[in-house]
Amino acid sequence: MQPLVPDIPVAVIGAGAMGSGIAQVAAQAGHQVFLLDQREGAAEAGRQSIAKQLQRRVDKGKLEQSALDALLDRIMPVNELSELAGAGLVIEAIVEDLDIKRSLLANLEEVCNASTILATNTSSISVTALGARMKHPERLVGMHFFNPAPLMALVEVIKGLATSDEVAQRVYATAAQWGKKPVTATSTPGFIVNRVARPFYAESLRLLQEQAASSATLDAIVREAGNFRMGPFELTDLIGHDVNYAVTSSVFNAYYQDTRFLPSLVQKDLVEAGRLGRKSGQGFYNYAEGAQKPEPATVAPASSDADTLIVEGTPGPLAALVTRLSENGLRIIERDGPGRLRFGKAVLALTDGRMATERAAAEACNNLILLDLAFDYSRASRLAIATADQASPQAVNDACALLQKAGIAVSQVADRPGLVIMRTVATLTNEAADAALHGVASVSDIDLAMKAGLNYPEGPLRWSDNLGPGLVHKVLTNIQQSYGEDRYRPALLLRKNRFSEKGFYS
Amino acid sequence: MQPLVPDIPVAVIGAGAMGSGIAQVAAQAGHQVFLLDQREGAAEAGRQSIAKQLQRRVDKGKLEQSALDALLDRIMPVNELSELAGAGLVIEAIVEDLDIKRSLLANLEEVCNASTILATNTSSISVTALGARMKHPERLVGMHFFNPAPLMALVEVIKGLATSDEVAQRVYATAAQWGKKPVTATSTPGFIVNRVARPFYAESLRLLQEQAASSATLDAIVREAGNFRMGPFELTDLIGHDVNYAVTSSVFNAYYQDTRFLPSLVQKDLVEAGRLGRKSGQGFYNYAEGAQKPEPATVAPASSDADTLIVEGTPGPLAALVTRLSENGLRIIERDGPGRLRFGKAVLALTDGRMATERAAAEACNNLILLDLAFDYSRASRLAIATADQASPQAVNDACALLQKAGIAVSQVADRPGLVIMRTVATLTNEAADAALHGVASVSDIDLAMKAGLNYPEGPLRWSDNLGPGLVHKVLTNIQQSYGEDRYRPALLLRKNRFSEKGFYS
Amino acid sequence: MQPLVPDIPVAVIGAGAMGSGIAQVAAQAGHQVFLLDQREGAAEAGRQSIAKQLQRRVDKGKLEQSALDALLDRIMPVNELSELAGAGLVIEAIVEDLDIKRSLLANLEEVCNASTILATNTSSISVTALGARMKHPERLVGMHFFNPAPLMALVEVIKGLATSDEVAQRVYATAAQWGKKPVTATSTPGFIVNRVARPFYAESLRLLQEQAASSATLDAIVREAGNFRMGPFELTDLIGHDVNYAVTSSVFNAYYQDTRFLPSLVQKDLVEAGRLGRKSGQGFYNYAEGAQKPEPATVAPASSDADTLIVEGTPGPLAALVTRLSENGLRIIERDGPGRLRFGKAVLALTDGRMATERAAAEACNNLILLDLAFDYSRASRLAIATADQASPQAVNDACALLQKAGIAVSQVADRPGLVIMRTVATLTNEAADAALHGVASVSDIDLAMKAGLNYPEGPLRWSDNLGPGLVHKVLTNIQQSYGEDRYRPALLLRKNRFSEKGFYS
Repeated sequence: MQPLVPDIPVAVIGAGAMGSGIAQVAAQAGHQVFLLDQREGAAEAGRQSIAKQLQRRVDKGKLEQSALDALLDRIMPVNELSELAGAGLVIEAIVEDLDIKRSLLANLEEVCNASTILATNTSSISVTALGARMKHPERLVGMHFFNPAPLMALVEVIKGLATSDEVAQRVYATAAQWGKKPVTATSTPGFIVNRVARPFYAESLRLLQEQAASSATLDAIVREAGNFRMGPFELTDLIGHDVNYAVTSSVFNAYYQDTRFLPSLVQKDLVEAGRLGRKSGQGFYNYAEGAQKPEPATVAPASSDADTLIVEGTPGPLAALVTRLSENGLRIIERDGPGRLRFGKAVLALTDGRMATERAAAEACNNLILLDLAFDYSRASRLAIATADQASPQAVNDACALLQKAGIAVSQVADRPGLVIMRTVATLTNEAADAALHGVASVSDIDLAMKAGLNYPEGPLRWSDNLGPGLVHKVLTNIQQSYGEDRYRPALLLRKNRFSEKGFYS
Repeated sequence: MQPLVPDIPVAVIGAGAMGSGIAQVAAQAGHQVFLLDQREGAAEAGRQSIAKQLQRRVDKGKLEQSALDALLDRIMPVNELSELAGAGLVIEAIVEDLDIKRSLLANLEEVCNASTILATNTSSISVTALGARMKHPERLVGMHFFNPAPLMALVEVIKGLATSDEVAQRVYATAAQWGKKPVTATSTPGFIVNRVARPFYAESLRLLQEQAASSATLDAIVREAGNFRMGPFELTDLIGHDVNYAVTSSVFNAYYQDTRFLPSLVQKDLVEAGRLGRKSGQGFYNYAEGAQKPEPATVAPASSDADTLIVEGTPGPLAALVTRLSENGLRIIERDGPGRLRFGKAVLALTDGRMATERAAAEACNNLILLDLAFDYSRASRLAIATADQASPQAVNDACALLQKAGIAVSQVADRPGLVIMRTVATLTNEAADAALHGVASVSDIDLAMKAGLNYPEGPLRWSDNLGPGLVHKVLTNIQQSYGEDRYRPALLLRKNRFSEKGFYS
Repeated sequence: MQPLVPDIPVAVIGAGAMGSGIAQVAAQAGHQVFLLDQREGAAEAGRQSIAKQLQRRVDKGKLEQSALDALLDRIMPVNELSELAGAGLVIEAIVEDLDIKRSLLANLEEVCNASTILATNTSSISVTALGARMKHPERLVGMHFFNPAPLMALVEVIKGLATSDEVAQRVYATAAQWGKKPVTATSTPGFIVNRVARPFYAESLRLLQEQAASSATLDAIVREAGNFRMGPFELTDLIGHDVNYAVTSSVFNAYYQDTRFLPSLVQKDLVEAGRLGRKSGQGFYNYAEGAQKPEPATVAPASSDADTLIVEGTPGPLAALVTRLSENGLRIIERDGPGRLRFGKAVLALTDGRMATERAAAEACNNLILLDLAFDYSRASRLAIATADQASPQAVNDACALLQKAGIAVSQVADRPGLVIMRTVATLTNEAADAALHGVASVSDIDLAMKAGLNYPEGPLRWSDNLGPGLVHKVLTNIQQSYGEDRYRPALLLRKNRFSEKGFYS
């Protein structure tokens, strides 16, 4: 399918941050852009804000003044819907209100050509519902940009029940032409990103509620072991807890209170306290002048008499850690076993979703220390561990000393199922797998959306595949067994993959 | 308990389709009927519509003109509540609104004799709540007819908390006297039919959401293998998705969001799109003039070199299928085994609720092809199968060829737990079993209600008994294990029956 | 932390039953008390009601007239907020309305000293939310008295997100000084008591719905075997079903419809019927003059030829019952086995959460009779039993005869998982354990709250410890397995304790 050619004008309705950003993107791609806002002067103000933003790039020498001038010339504030008649694509970015958007769409059907594509930037309203009263709902499509639109690569192209394939494909091609990374999704609550990302916040909030570790510690683990750009607490402090809680609640309710999307009382408490995050001066952290950011809990340097790492069986994802320890001068001995590491008194294993205390009892191995997942064990600067209640202090000491030898900061968290990164990745995968089962989007589009939309270090389905067939299913099964909650039910596709020994990409 | 004798007048309030239908039923039974509607002329119009309906029967020679005239003479439109004073039974069929009905009942208590039975045709309001402010709530009873009342055999007699046994029994006897099939139920959300039937819609909607098969394919399986009169999609297209979704949502909320009654996003999408079914011209199917109804997916005729069916162990419910295959010229060899059929490369088994892929792995049997349940294997014209991911194309081919030899159309559905009919019957049974546990109605009344109210080929509890002790419990246990969801928890009575090796009727 | 010295005045706002009661408590402790109510004359009326209450104690010689006079002198009805300025502690006990309380707190911040502690007696509103718009939310604390405040020992001291430790500790010390038993809890829905107590009502309501026994029988079991002061049905008849249902619904919704807090349709039906309990003249029981209270179902005296009790293995919690039977003249033989008692044809065992029918099948022991838990087997006057469907009438007879020999009334309940007291204690423990995990309160404060606030014979966590490590977890695991519902998921701490073989206090 061919993209909209640059000769064809584009219209953007709503000149707020999002609308102006979209207008800029379209103008940068060479389109003439009609910018309309019902608030007097807002369209012109939107154009000015674009000018101001881009002037900085000119000042830094990254953009020619002439290019900026030409771009601004292509953005034309207008006052009447009728002036949009010539546009080949109209994108509305007005207030998130079903009735108001429906009314606008009805008016657009009056003034626009039959061939004009009507797109909505809604993040939370059903495209199907928006199209329900249109004469030609097949021409309506969702085009969900992320804020700030000029910088964020992802565009979710949303198909309502009546959206024609041709319209969706043309919008997809156009977004790609504009330098974006489009994905296609059916109109379901949260689309891809706002749905699949929920566990990233939810699991850390739950770990905090269960007193597994402090917010600063969990944030550090997520960043330094998980390779996410920001931890869930600093990120929601940035997003605003009112906003994040509202999205969670909206998705939770749209999925009929599925506990997978359960809102957190901890976050609700912040909202009720008015601790909305950076914008209110306090959230999980205090942003007042002079306030000190709390440090993550890190185990003090430990020393151990041990000098040999015994690798019992296949280390699986821990192989890179073994290599790193070897490179740090540790003697390695390999022998048969269930995939565990021994160092001094410590027996270390990658979490399989069970609590250390439970697994220690089940495997008759008191000195069990569980290791959390890392995105890349060869480079992680921090790792979470959990120790069995039965473990001796010496065993814990030896485990910490081992990891510290490789320069890894150790955060000991309370003994909860699946630790931090493993639990996060497993639950993200789970949500992504159900989105795939229900045909919300393709496997590769789901992964792309999470990377392009949220800067995840890897798409969850690919990440799960990389961990080897069955591991995430096993982890989730054990977490579900531990909590006894539907919330952690492994997705049907994960179960099927486990028995067919396939991955999402194989 | 004696029924109301025909000499005693009956009153019906509300002369819409339901009220008029009830008036007709009572008049046919010989009662004088007072028909009241607060809308001017509505009672007379109701009487006319009865006349019009029955005139057709006269024209066809199925009813004497004199009988019709006599019947119409017995129906007397009235204008004032006070004119109902002489009735022995007053049935209200007005708008479904708690406050309006309560107000009417209060007025009826003023004008009627102390011995008059007051009945409500409500389908969704608690009879207990309706009676709460009455002076004599013991005289209020639910009398839930189904539309069209003259044709539908079922009447649910609903006991509120205060309803006297005598009143309920007299209304039961009266309904029987009128030629209906009454059942007795306590006032709980959805009573019997609107509660127990939910899975019929819900499971097919979920299979559709999980892309197991097309709506046309699922409808064909439900009709041709399940012996239901209509498939769930064509039936809800007929009922109207707004209506069906509202009933589901109402029951879901009344049971405090029990996921057994979870509404479907697929149906909600149709409602939001305005695709309400036949009445709006489109639902799952398109009813526009000239629109083609999609065909069910049917496996093309296959041929196989195999000519012998090996029956390994006891075939259980598949015995009738084996007989049918034998009658179609297949050589049968019996030997010991776990209850499976072998034909060429194919190993066939009745679904036990697990996915074929999982069971193939568990039983180390790659070429496993699961058969869905049929109401009657000796006559089913279609059967659903699901194949393990591990199965060879040759095995799938042989399985299809086998069934086709008996003239059975084969629909291959995606590998989902419990296939279609087994899943539907198991979940219907489950809901019926909990209704029995909670004393909503007797086992036999529940079954009767589903047959008389919805034309099911068999009551779910009897059907479950027919499948043999423990099978439905096993299927549900496996489905629950597969999805990890409370939604599929087997009812306590099914579990108890499994261990005592009893059925609902034994 | 020092309590507020008696020299410092206390203010109470709201002179209803609760406010007046709190004023009395503070005055009894020697404080001058300002009593304010916006309703004209209400404060004076409150003081009069205190006078009236205490005059009875004077009349009975339990209180000196001079002490009463002095106490009343210390209670000063006031009309203006500004008159409270001198108080060191202001306790509001006004209507449960977030906005009205917030407005009051804002006004209090205007008139009170910076050092004045502001306390709220709310039972259902978040202290965090109440403090959100205050200039100094650190000075707001919950001080949750129970009705009637002068008699009930418990005070829940509630910390909002911003409440300072110092303020909470001073209020705690003050409540102790006033002769109360304070506990500290974080501001979470239901605090301690209104959350942890839910299963006490919920499980009996469910047993009733499942037709396990009549309300009178269940009440008798809870009193006579469980040592609770009142059974759940007579207690909720006293509380009022509208009130109890509202609290349950509020907690249920606050925990996002967690099925652990699922409201009961049986209770909802009572509310809808207007059968609110004692205050309306009818609830589960009829309180009309002359109405007879139904008797609990008790097995008629049985006789058995058996004269020897065979104790197979360690009887665990049943040891006291064995001793009691021995003291009643029974010959005891001990031998190896799985912890069961044999008497005649009967095989008796303490419930482990499974239905008798299931366990009989699993243990190939048809004549299995399950015994319910008793608080103290050496003194219980009644015990519930459940029998396997497979058991012979002779076995049931022998079991009843055995218990009757020790003077124990036997109530046979239908075969449901966990019977009555075991199920109640297990689910109370479960809720308490999660409150501990989430840091709502300490283990000992949770137990104290349930004893001091509701007169439970023992705190659930201590009770669970007394039953031995792992038993409650095992029972809950089996109940969850039986129902297949998240509702019965064992708390994470119970699971952890099971594997580390620890208790909550060890």
